[in-house]
Amino acid sequence: MDIGFVGLGKMGMNMVKRLVGHGHRVFCAARTEGKRPEAEAAGATWVADPAGFRAVLRAPRAVWSMVPAGAPTEETLRALAAAVERDDIVIDGGNSDWRDSRRRHAWMAGEGRRFLDVGTSGGIWGLEKGYCLMIGGDPATVAHLEPIFAALAGPGGWARVGPGSAGHFVKMVHNAVEYGMMQAYAEGFEVMERSGLGLDLGRISTLWNHGSVVRSWLLELAEDIFRDDPHLDGLAGRVEDSGEGRWALETAIAQGVPAPAFAAALFARFASRETDAFGNRFLAALRHRFGGHAFTGREDPAVAGPARPATGQNRP
Amino acid sequence: MDIGFVGLGKMGMNMVKRLVGHGHRVFCAARTEGKRPEAEAAGATWVADPAGFRAVLRAPRAVWSMVPAGAPTEETLRALAAAVERDDIVIDGGNSDWRDSRRRHAWMAGEGRRFLDVGTSGGIWGLEKGYCLMIGGDPATVAHLEPIFAALAGPGGWARVGPGSAGHFVKMVHNAVEYGMMQAYAEGFEVMERSGLGLDLGRISTLWNHGSVVRSWLLELAEDIFRDDPHLDGLAGRVEDSGEGRWALETAIAQGVPAPAFAAALFARFASRETDAFGNRFLAALRHRFGGHAFTGREDPAVAGPARPATGQNRP
Repeated sequence: MDIGFVGLGKMGMNMVKRLVGHGHRVFCAARTEGKRPEAEAAGATWVADPAGFRAVLRAPRAVWSMVPAGAPTEETLRALAAAVERDDIVIDGGNSDWRDSRRRHAWMAGEGRRFLDVGTSGGIWGLEKGYCLMIGGDPATVAHLEPIFAALAGPGGWARVGPGSAGHFVKMVHNAVEYGMMQAYAEGFEVMERSGLGLDLGRISTLWNHGSVVRSWLLELAEDIFRDDPHLDGLAGRVEDSGEGRWALETAIAQGVPAPAFAAALFARFASRETDAFGNRFLAALRHRFGGHAFTGREDPAVAGPARPATGQNRP
Repeated sequence: MDIGFVGLGKMGMNMVKRLVGHGHRVFCAARTEGKRPEAEAAGATWVADPAGFRAVLRAPRAVWSMVPAGAPTEETLRALAAAVERDDIVIDGGNSDWRDSRRRHAWMAGEGRRFLDVGTSGGIWGLEKGYCLMIGGDPATVAHLEPIFAALAGPGGWARVGPGSAGHFVKMVHNAVEYGMMQAYAEGFEVMERSGLGLDLGRISTLWNHGSVVRSWLLELAEDIFRDDPHLDGLAGRVEDSGEGRWALETAIAQGVPAPAFAAALFARFASRETDAFGNRFLAALRHRFGGHAFTGREDPAVAGPARPATGQNRP
């Protein structure tokens, strides 16, 4: 099958390689020529601009966007919709906010374009093992692209999960679950690392993966991690987030669903990036004011001021 | 190898069956004869009382306790220690608090008994697939019992993880991680169930298990769960806990380690058991008092009293 592809980051390039490896013809476009050698070496055909897809693909055309969520995706999807014609298919395989995808489904339909939102999991392992694809949109359109999805996914690794936006909704939840699982493992490993019992976390990860209730693919990665660096001495404890955890919590809030593990995991990441948080400085200052508790000064220790006795009704 | 066994609950009985199935001679003791037919049918030999282990086992004797944590384990371990002789081996395979196990290691050593604490994971699946055993104690004693551990565990499913109490420490952390993972999945499935997108949670579980980052054994169980009851109509949302989650949080607190996911998961279970929590009634009352917000009365709606205007410095 022929497909146009935009977005040759680490994940997109691997997807192009996997598609070509399964016998599909992939046409790649990008603003710059930087990725051209790698794409051509992988067997893809280079196209100067997304507008070029119209000439090289036959209707119904399929064009895949694999660029960062937000403005880059918005821009790419508009360019792709403009590059193709009525009933052609535009696919967003990135990590878009499902609420954006819902809006885009309506917009694409209004423009006469068929649109699919595809949540893609698998990271850098996808090239070898296949991706897990969570697809939202019209069943006939999904069926038409089956050869593409089958090439990208491992066995059993793709499905239409629901109507438009369902793909990105399910991917968002997937990532929030991932955050929560990772946080649970992280807390467990920290409690064990600080046990004073000399526990070998790599050995325990391996053991847990043999018959315990917590065995998982993430725990297999943990085995590799602790084999390479048993006490994680080579890493700083700063953890980024890429949006889905926030959107999942926003969605839970909109639904009125309690999601304390999602919140704990997300806020733990936020906290990991604050070495000297304003809130913590406020807490230190307040403890000092009402209780005379010691505090650790910064450059100007007067920031917390002198302690003073509690007065009025609101004593500690 | 010969071994004495006390504790023929669902898990203990399966362990006896697995030991016998691997060619070991198992001697079972219990206060009542209720489990005798099943134990004998499984090929175990019935002993009237733990005191009988001394006569039927040869030194160094090994006796295994598989009873509920707390008083039952304390009582059983004392009986077993009294039933055997110097350098004989007493094993606690139950879900004991590692702080109890630490105390018992000191006590058993004082009595001249060798003691191992063995955290056992695998639940009802252990009989077929083998248990995951996390063992704490003297390496030579662990090595001596290798045939027993190898019979109980699946391939790679047992290891000495550290000195005395390490086995139950690691098992405690394992269960807290399990709570956190389960809570993350639970929140994800609830957000998806309430999405309005008609998502098929069984299909999504299966999909996620094929190449996604969150694939795990727990998620395989979720596939079975949603296949049997797609909307969980047959269940009440009341979740028990069995101690390890509490101990893990207590341990994290003693270490000064933040464990927000452990706390969220444990407290979510507590909340699941409170249909009309006192704290929530207080919140409803307080909202009513300061803001005149409506509240849902119980039998005597006067419990919340009339609203009154905020006064003083502490206005909302």
